[in-house]
Amino acid sequence: MTSEDYLHIAFLLAKRANSKDIRPNPFVGAIIVAENGVIIGEGFHKMSGKAHAEVNAINDALIKSTDLSNCTLYVTLEPCSHTGKTPPCTHLIIKHKIPKVVIGSMDPNPLVAGGKILADAGVLVETCILPEVVALNDTFNINQIHNRPKYIIKSATTINGKIADRLGNSKWISNKKSRDYVHRILRTNADAILTTAHTVIKDNAKMNIRLEEADARELDLIIIDKQLDILKLINKDLAIFYKRIKSKIYLVTDKTYENELPEHVEIMNVNMNDGNCDLIQLSALLLEKNICEVLVEAGGKLNASLINEKIVDELNVFMSPSLLMDNYALNVFNSNELQAIENSVQLTLLETQTFDSDILLRYKLVY
Amino acid sequence: MTSEDYLHIAFLLAKRANSKDIRPNPFVGAIIVAENGVIIGEGFHKMSGKAHAEVNAINDALIKSTDLSNCTLYVTLEPCSHTGKTPPCTHLIIKHKIPKVVIGSMDPNPLVAGGKILADAGVLVETCILPEVVALNDTFNINQIHNRPKYIIKSATTINGKIADRLGNSKWISNKKSRDYVHRILRTNADAILTTAHTVIKDNAKMNIRLEEADARELDLIIIDKQLDILKLINKDLAIFYKRIKSKIYLVTDKTYENELPEHVEIMNVNMNDGNCDLIQLSALLLEKNICEVLVEAGGKLNASLINEKIVDELNVFMSPSLLMDNYALNVFNSNELQAIENSVQLTLLETQTFDSDILLRYKLVY
Repeated sequence: MTSEDYLHIAFLLAKRANSKDIRPNPFVGAIIVAENGVIIGEGFHKMSGKAHAEVNAINDALIKSTDLSNCTLYVTLEPCSHTGKTPPCTHLIIKHKIPKVVIGSMDPNPLVAGGKILADAGVLVETCILPEVVALNDTFNINQIHNRPKYIIKSATTINGKIADRLGNSKWISNKKSRDYVHRILRTNADAILTTAHTVIKDNAKMNIRLEEADARELDLIIIDKQLDILKLINKDLAIFYKRIKSKIYLVTDKTYENELPEHVEIMNVNMNDGNCDLIQLSALLLEKNICEVLVEAGGKLNASLINEKIVDELNVFMSPSLLMDNYALNVFNSNELQAIENSVQLTLLETQTFDSDILLRYKLVY
Repeated sequence: MTSEDYLHIAFLLAKRANSKDIRPNPFVGAIIVAENGVIIGEGFHKMSGKAHAEVNAINDALIKSTDLSNCTLYVTLEPCSHTGKTPPCTHLIIKHKIPKVVIGSMDPNPLVAGGKILADAGVLVETCILPEVVALNDTFNINQIHNRPKYIIKSATTINGKIADRLGNSKWISNKKSRDYVHRILRTNADAILTTAHTVIKDNAKMNIRLEEADARELDLIIIDKQLDILKLINKDLAIFYKRIKSKIYLVTDKTYENELPEHVEIMNVNMNDGNCDLIQLSALLLEKNICEVLVEAGGKLNASLINEKIVDELNVFMSPSLLMDNYALNVFNSNELQAIENSVQLTLLETQTFDSDILLRYKLVY
């Protein structure tokens, strides 16, 4: 077994966690391998505030052997060196005299320098960066590096980029299988949906998670709503006001609201310049609320604003096998600014999937 | 071996022909199978005006056996029963007392009723329709049924349906591999390119077939050019005026031209209503010129007109990994008419291919 093989096992352990249980932390898996190559300890980070993967792996190994001084620790992420909700893992590694640590990805947080601390303490530290390990913590890395959530735009369009006819009608551009994927994968993975009051009122969708085999699950909803239209009496029966237990509706505005807010509704005050929400300020506020990954399901204006702000990480376009041949039909990116071809936004195709005649095109943004 | 197996062999023979050599005829392959199951004759239709597949197969079989009265003829298309450039194949089958004929697809031409004539003459006729056989003659079938060429629209767009920025610049939306596919497959298969004077003048492209490993090949070009702008002195050096040996440039207009035309240029007179070319009339004229399959490489207006006329059979969209977020950027389908979502044009996804980060989406139109 090579270091890659052992790290891949640690990676599989890391993936066992549920992303929403560990937010804002990364996925981490760790194994302890004895001198003879046998894995004697396994662990992964399971819950924010609870033990790190290294701690779980070491504790598991200690059941089999009290002496780890001939073992190697394989861990998917650089061990932490600072005291957060739990003590630094580097202490524990040094305390148990583990002589060698192999790391599968580096921590982008500058407060974390576990590799160096271990090396300074005489531990042999090897790094063996595995792409699947880095990809698993894409959201965490974006949160750490850019101090904002990961933003994923989801849209259903005709093959010529229209999301609705000129009257605003859009039911249904994508097919049932595509919509099921939105619930099962995109909404399930996201911490919240970001949209606008305009879209919420026009579509009157629930914006929750509905799967055929399970009860509907609630999901945080962030609504850009400068005028607080959502709170108007006429909108009191909107589908988003389903019975919520733990999720919230955040209304993003620069206004204050004097009356009592409905249950589960919070105001999120953000600057609005020329009617446009300050998306950087909003991003920082969302991260404070532990909203680390946001699915954008909105109209063309917000889609374009987010990309212009260079904060969109991924684009998921469900392309339906249809055409709306009308220049006034609504565009998936709605902007009246001149954009010359040499300034076009560049993407990288990550993946395609077909759902009958719909095709999902998944792109990464390149800024 | 089943009938399907034998017909598939005949299908592989049929495919050996070059589509442009046999226009306006279909691909046809035929085999003669002796009583013991051995194939004793093979043939296919190789050149318009020359022997049909059945004739070639029978002649091939006669070398091995003068008596075919215990053989079966497998032929991919219903044998012809009328005298065209060659005598009817039904005569030959009856003359050689071939007792059984298995047919892989029916001829859409009502003048062809070979199956019935053979059956009336006491031949056992079986039909065994194979999808690959029918698909091979898609162009022929469209020509016969609709009295028009097969039209294939090719376009290179951003993922939001833009073909150029608002200034008209489009170089290059698609990548080199995509453009190579256009030359190698789409232009190579087509009998002509259909475009407009506007596109020819704006892009100044050669519109020929260029492959890295071979000399450039010429291709007929049909230009909708009401005002005969292409013939203006200022346009005399356009790239389309490369040295032509056998191909033509057809200028589609309702005007007459008094002066001498440049070599290889012909006027094609078609009615123009409100500046729009009568595409049905044009289609019939093209078929008369033996132009059976047309690749449309034009702007959004002609693309939309062709689809509104319901004469487009296939759409090939090369989607580049880019976005032009400008409502005034040029649309792949350019129409100012209202189209409500319930009247959107429906397509069927036939195939996808990726060329690095470009993706080719191939659709069939559903009217």
